[in-house]
Amino acid sequence: MNALRTDLYEIRMAVSYLRRGMTGPAAFSLFARNLPPERGFLVAAGLDEALAELHGFRFEPEELGYLRESVRLPAADVEALSQLRFTGDVRAVPEGRVVFAGEPLLEVTAPLPEAQLVETVLLNTITFATAIATKAARCRLAAPDAELIDFSARRTHGASAALASARLTALAGFRGTSNVEGAFRHGLRAAGTMAHSYVQAFPSELDAFRAFAEDFPAAPVFLVDTVDPVRGIAHAIEVAGELGLAPASVGIRLDSGDLLAQSRTARRMLDDAGLAAARIMASGGLDEYELERLTAAGAPIDAYGVGTAVGVSADAPALDTAYKLVEYAGRPVMKLSAGKRTLPGGKQVYRFRTGGPDVLALARESRPGGEALLVPVMLHGRRVGSQDLTRARARLARDLAWLPQSARLLRRPVPVEVRCSAALSCLAGEVAARMPIRRQPALIR
Amino acid sequence: MNALRTDLYEIRMAVSYLRRGMTGPAAFSLFARNLPPERGFLVAAGLDEALAELHGFRFEPEELGYLRESVRLPAADVEALSQLRFTGDVRAVPEGRVVFAGEPLLEVTAPLPEAQLVETVLLNTITFATAIATKAARCRLAAPDAELIDFSARRTHGASAALASARLTALAGFRGTSNVEGAFRHGLRAAGTMAHSYVQAFPSELDAFRAFAEDFPAAPVFLVDTVDPVRGIAHAIEVAGELGLAPASVGIRLDSGDLLAQSRTARRMLDDAGLAAARIMASGGLDEYELERLTAAGAPIDAYGVGTAVGVSADAPALDTAYKLVEYAGRPVMKLSAGKRTLPGGKQVYRFRTGGPDVLALARESRPGGEALLVPVMLHGRRVGSQDLTRARARLARDLAWLPQSARLLRRPVPVEVRCSAALSCLAGEVAARMPIRRQPALIR
Repeated sequence: MNALRTDLYEIRMAVSYLRRGMTGPAAFSLFARNLPPERGFLVAAGLDEALAELHGFRFEPEELGYLRESVRLPAADVEALSQLRFTGDVRAVPEGRVVFAGEPLLEVTAPLPEAQLVETVLLNTITFATAIATKAARCRLAAPDAELIDFSARRTHGASAALASARLTALAGFRGTSNVEGAFRHGLRAAGTMAHSYVQAFPSELDAFRAFAEDFPAAPVFLVDTVDPVRGIAHAIEVAGELGLAPASVGIRLDSGDLLAQSRTARRMLDDAGLAAARIMASGGLDEYELERLTAAGAPIDAYGVGTAVGVSADAPALDTAYKLVEYAGRPVMKLSAGKRTLPGGKQVYRFRTGGPDVLALARESRPGGEALLVPVMLHGRRVGSQDLTRARARLARDLAWLPQSARLLRRPVPVEVRCSAALSCLAGEVAARMPIRRQPALIR
Repeated sequence: MNALRTDLYEIRMAVSYLRRGMTGPAAFSLFARNLPPERGFLVAAGLDEALAELHGFRFEPEELGYLRESVRLPAADVEALSQLRFTGDVRAVPEGRVVFAGEPLLEVTAPLPEAQLVETVLLNTITFATAIATKAARCRLAAPDAELIDFSARRTHGASAALASARLTALAGFRGTSNVEGAFRHGLRAAGTMAHSYVQAFPSELDAFRAFAEDFPAAPVFLVDTVDPVRGIAHAIEVAGELGLAPASVGIRLDSGDLLAQSRTARRMLDDAGLAAARIMASGGLDEYELERLTAAGAPIDAYGVGTAVGVSADAPALDTAYKLVEYAGRPVMKLSAGKRTLPGGKQVYRFRTGGPDVLALARESRPGGEALLVPVMLHGRRVGSQDLTRARARLARDLAWLPQSARLLRRPVPVEVRCSAALSCLAGEVAARMPIRRQPALIR
């Protein structure tokens, strides 16, 4: 990591802490304050990248020069920053686990300046990844029996986001990605068909289909809607016959119009032509709501290419996450800001596989029979264990199976309840009591 | 650029074209099919990065190895791909110009395989940047007299997106960014105050404010809502007095609750304390709608930190963009897919500063009195001119001044009309007439 990837105020605060010797252990908690309206759960993600950022945390020489010359930090402060590495501990919810509002996704304990400086990058990494993984998991729930392919590379927020999206959709059970770099970097299956331009570049659709089947005879997928889908399907059937393609190797893709009606037509035409094993793929502005509608209607669609909606988490492109100081030098702290109140102290989340609410407890509490969600992932700046994609995928599958139906709903879901332990409630009461009394909003007008 | 940053189908199509010698000149047009519901215009952006990607286009050795071994492309195809560079011409709408649905943001003319392979990266770069620049311009319109600061780094889709957001908000007239890397890389002003954690790390708010003012006496901005804003403002005033801070150097930041009421209270308290020159900043979940509301209510807020909403373009995180073949080897082409019909031929957009609709014409047409929006930006793979941020900002300011009030509205705007020239309509009719007749949707059920 490049330690300049932070907000200026983090650097200012760190400088002030360093000048004043305020380097005692600070605990920060990263959590979503609320779930977006149509989310019954979140899928924890982004941890692997977040830990890589922490591990590599340092200011590079050119960055230090910038802080000296342009931000005009005194040389002694810049020197102090140059020595900083991330030496703290991190506990986190492993990737793929389902979490709810208020439950820490990650807790950092580190000397105050270090813990403060990494706020921006941790929030950014975890928020983005969790938003995308959650959206992808919703798509998976919406079409449980279909093959889903990540088609998002062309509309994510930059190429790095596309790379991340390929991995995060795989975490949620997508079976491939159109993104070749994503497939390469993350060991995924690259998937792809043809574009309309391919059909248009040939004198006729039949010519284009013949050429494509000759060049990629193993598994040609014909995009049939450049001119007219029925005609396109007929051409695909004609070419499959001409070239003697194995029925199971043939596919068609529908990319516009009424996908339900077209998929039924396509299924019938393919079946009638002896291509019952041929596959039907659909794409074009799909999201979990459309997948659910098509699934409920029994659309004979074997695979979906899901792009923009998942790659930008279209209806909730960000989460209301926070990274808040909960303890400094042994003293639990909280804030009382309107609508943004926090709870003091390092925490643990306990979940009960037999059902019932999650329990948000103090880190030192135990809960027999409860599964602790936060586990150590970094000790003294060194990573502990690995964030493996295969295991993350298995965790998500297990948690989705546990998730109550009401929380799985795509619309108006009811998240699992999160209760504070008595000890946490008690501590919050004590800390608040020591703080000056908060005035009511009416008094400050 | 890393040429693997593409969808697999682009590579498949390019391979097929190369095998068949289909390397004639192809023209592709990149445009937004529709504007999102609450957009009366788009701000063209992303060109600088898009051209950098084209300029650096090549497959690296490890990528070629991947295509051979994992994608199982024959050696001859991989060898052909290894030779590819982008040698084409690009015409584009310069960054900062206002455009509407259907108007090309960019047109590529290049040998077909090259023009095809760059589809994904061009769509990604231009779509993302245009979405963010547009959102930022809307914020600018909503609070024309306030200073806007980019606070988005913690919730963009990755660190690269944050870097882009710093630049794109500056293009729209933001006066600074909290993102230190963004300020460094793009020569912008870095801005920052303090976080709640800073206040919490000290024994009391007064202690925290004193320390901050001592450490950053030039322009301390006190975050006043950790416990209670009125008390926080009183503490800021107390510390300013104690340390004899110049009134114009002092600022307070409000980050929660009723910003209108609090800003009025703050203004009165500061004025009464002889700090009429002290500045009030507001932040916390702001977007253009909230900025407009606060501006209309006359909130005495001098500066706004706008974060998540602009950094992810929250209500329209993607645009319905397309990159479509419009001509191949001298033959104009179009597609008739339901709802996704395209217009044939290379194009030009003419705008009339005296008012009236934009005219979408064929590239070869001229329109006396009309300003041509698309200009050459790359010839034979070499960049022509530069995409300078200062000039882009000036272009946007000029175009926003031209934009009719109805198109500037934040809610239910009416975009400027775009009319097709007679020659373009005529060509579209001719090309469609040569294509097989499209069946009506009713017939394909």
